[in-house]
Amino acid sequence: MRCFLKTSKGSCGELGEKRLISKITETMRRYGVAEPSPSGPGDDCAALPAKNFGSNMLCTSDAVILGVHFSESDNPRLAGAKLLKRNISDIAAMGGKPLYALSSAIISKNLSARWLGEFCRGLCEAAREYGIKFCGGDLARVEGSFFSMHLSLLGSGAKRLLARSGGKEGDLIYVTAPLGGSFESGKHLKFVPRLKEAQFLLNYGGVGACMDISDGIASDLKCLIPDGCRAVLENVPQTVFRGREVGLKKALCDGEDYELLFSHSGNADRLQKAYKRKFGKELYLIGRFEKASKKEDRGKIFVKTASSVEEFTGSGFEH
Amino acid sequence: MRCFLKTSKGSCGELGEKRLISKITETMRRYGVAEPSPSGPGDDCAALPAKNFGSNMLCTSDAVILGVHFSESDNPRLAGAKLLKRNISDIAAMGGKPLYALSSAIISKNLSARWLGEFCRGLCEAAREYGIKFCGGDLARVEGSFFSMHLSLLGSGAKRLLARSGGKEGDLIYVTAPLGGSFESGKHLKFVPRLKEAQFLLNYGGVGACMDISDGIASDLKCLIPDGCRAVLENVPQTVFRGREVGLKKALCDGEDYELLFSHSGNADRLQKAYKRKFGKELYLIGRFEKASKKEDRGKIFVKTASSVEEFTGSGFEH
Repeated sequence: MRCFLKTSKGSCGELGEKRLISKITETMRRYGVAEPSPSGPGDDCAALPAKNFGSNMLCTSDAVILGVHFSESDNPRLAGAKLLKRNISDIAAMGGKPLYALSSAIISKNLSARWLGEFCRGLCEAAREYGIKFCGGDLARVEGSFFSMHLSLLGSGAKRLLARSGGKEGDLIYVTAPLGGSFESGKHLKFVPRLKEAQFLLNYGGVGACMDISDGIASDLKCLIPDGCRAVLENVPQTVFRGREVGLKKALCDGEDYELLFSHSGNADRLQKAYKRKFGKELYLIGRFEKASKKEDRGKIFVKTASSVEEFTGSGFEH
Repeated sequence: MRCFLKTSKGSCGELGEKRLISKITETMRRYGVAEPSPSGPGDDCAALPAKNFGSNMLCTSDAVILGVHFSESDNPRLAGAKLLKRNISDIAAMGGKPLYALSSAIISKNLSARWLGEFCRGLCEAAREYGIKFCGGDLARVEGSFFSMHLSLLGSGAKRLLARSGGKEGDLIYVTAPLGGSFESGKHLKFVPRLKEAQFLLNYGGVGACMDISDGIASDLKCLIPDGCRAVLENVPQTVFRGREVGLKKALCDGEDYELLFSHSGNADRLQKAYKRKFGKELYLIGRFEKASKKEDRGKIFVKTASSVEEFTGSGFEH
């Protein structure tokens, strides 16, 4: 479907700001994902009952930009769903539950209103699936051919959260699926945020550090390594794409996996069996936080093979 | 100060994503406007104590885009402050108190790192002034020459809020300052969000509908007119700029005033005197919601002169 139009017929510019906002809000209401004001769109702010948020109100913010996070040839519904799911993945990685979204678009006037409608339908379908309500937003126009949408997602969290800072020396490191090749395989549009898996881990106990993989673990894992330690990886599972594995470098560096990366201090076999019973799929043990005897190894990632342990110097994906 | 650079020296592209984020976070810490994780930046989400939000958690989202909401010749510190103040103005208009901000930038690699630093300093100065803490954000890169920053602002609200929907037939309509010419006079960068004034009105009682003026009251006031009514305006105060009033049309249509527009059911003289005692400045009575005897007049704005009452057909500012 064409994204930018050559004439004004059918464009967002032709519709104008007010009618465009009405159409988007109307789509949200039709999908049952916008509550009436003051909890929904329509006032200066949304007013949300503070008691809905549990002990900790979780908030995160991420955008999708055409040409950066998806391309003109991608299905706009999947792109819309991706925007919401990227943010859900962050709430999941803290062990929370997503509740409310604020969305804000920047568009050029030659953007196809039909294309934008499809994008919004994808966004609303995902919101319905995950029980999220839109509570407001904003629209701004720029010159040229441009589209981005920003989303802030609010969720509820228990007293106990999954944080990046909880890792300890000796913790084992896990991921929830094979990694890499997310752009080529289309996974970056179709992934499922690991809400249920994170809830399971929070209840199971023993999780040290946890985050979702967005820039690739070559970059992300460095945020989890405890003081004075290094991460030593072994058997990193690689995505099989067109019949072959993507390779270790891509598995570590590609980014946009949206899987959970976490450390755990308990028995690996018991955890993996409980996870498999619950979800019918593997939990991948990929390494361990070890004390770094050399000062210069601290905070770094190493890969262990049959014959050696070598520093991995590839870097993650920068959006 | 130059915004986009011709060579990579001193550009955001030269610094790279990680160092850019570190620099921004460092600026926030220096100004004392970022708390440590998990309430501040550094994890997948910020976790904010839900009890801080009172009965109602208020949230709003607005952006500033270079070339739309400010220009390359504007002081980047004022542009940064504007981003925060636009959002504060929305929280104020609901009678709330701003608490936490999430900021998200879209930048091109030729953006000057020094310019961005100044923008962020303006943002942080405003955050310090209004007691707001940054709890997270996001950075994305696009081609060309582009800069926008999005902000989501969270605040606390009491059980009783100032809403757009509370107006009644017979309510008098007020604004907190003369209107119009905000772009030419530079007010759009230097305005003061009406937090204290809104708190005063909430405590004083009798406020019907309330909002902040962003698109001009030719457009905004229509959101407040009660069912079956019309708004009749008289004596709309106009901004004096370069020694002359901006004119009625500009006062109603220009937008970006960021003043409060509200209706009140009580005695006008008493309210205006109490307001003047408190703030040492005028509260402007500009009209009234009247029953619309003709069906086609409902929801519309009329202007009363010495000799006639005529519909005002100008439209507000579309960003």
